[in-house]
Amino acid sequence: MSTDYEKRLLQWLQDAYAMEQEAETMMKAFAGRLENYPDLRQRVERHVEETRLQADRIGGCIERLGGSLPTAKSLFASLMAQVHATGNAMMSDEVVKGVGISYAFENMEVTSYRALIVAAREAGHGEIATVCENILAEEQAMADWLLEHHTGLVKRFLQREAAEGVTAKR
Amino acid sequence: MSTDYEKRLLQWLQDAYAMEQEAETMMKAFAGRLENYPDLRQRVERHVEETRLQADRIGGCIERLGGSLPTAKSLFASLMAQVHATGNAMMSDEVVKGVGISYAFENMEVTSYRALIVAAREAGHGEIATVCENILAEEQAMADWLLEHHTGLVKRFLQREAAEGVTAKR
Repeated sequence: MSTDYEKRLLQWLQDAYAMEQEAETMMKAFAGRLENYPDLRQRVERHVEETRLQADRIGGCIERLGGSLPTAKSLFASLMAQVHATGNAMMSDEVVKGVGISYAFENMEVTSYRALIVAAREAGHGEIATVCENILAEEQAMADWLLEHHTGLVKRFLQREAAEGVTAKR
Repeated sequence: MSTDYEKRLLQWLQDAYAMEQEAETMMKAFAGRLENYPDLRQRVERHVEETRLQADRIGGCIERLGGSLPTAKSLFASLMAQVHATGNAMMSDEVVKGVGISYAFENMEVTSYRALIVAAREAGHGEIATVCENILAEEQAMADWLLEHHTGLVKRFLQREAAEGVTAKR
């Protein structure tokens, strides 16, 4: 009965797996460059760890459905990585743009897991829905942290940029 | 006194101008392809109109500060456009991915305008802060609409995909 739903669920799980792999690469690069924003660096590094576990959990769901783990990066994930790799380091306001891009990315992940929860329920896989609900809560918490700290980070960036002899961008 | 702040404010206004130009292109392409999701199409088309006016208002702020309107697309904006152009049309779940990307993009715009409001206040340009607050409210409203309608859109997509002889992807 739920073949179409199951096929779609599997595909979205594979998309999510690729997305988390990319998220790990992106966030690690971003955090690794931060020197003067230790609270941000620490929070992003914590989320890198969460992201690794998320990929494992999604991998488990894929295997439960008899699917294979995607090896090649998705087009979207590769492009997002390009944005981060070529974009950020060139930017004189890298930390501010990085927070903006990270916040956008977390929110994309939020919609992905929300869609997965709907698909898992429709396909009758309640246990996969539960896994996705738990991951969703972590993505939402990361997004919330970024928004809560956004104004403070922007103010610190502007103050550093106006001061002599300090690095503001990262 | 506020030269550094003003320089940064101007640069962020120019980034926002380029971002809105790109947003217009992206959303127009997305809405134009939608055939079976009239409510989404209508809301995105309304936001395309808002986006045009936002670019004009930001252009006015740039001119008030003696800056020039950016003509070339920013690196980030071009990459985002590539994501949309090459990514979406190829995807069998274009409408769902499109909503996710649009939601992410609106949230990136939210952080951009929040940063601009801080910079405008620090630079003593309260009138520019007010313009940005008004635009922020429109971006937030668009993001809220997408999130509110997300579950319903995903359900409709899954139902269409499971049905015979109907197009689900757009």
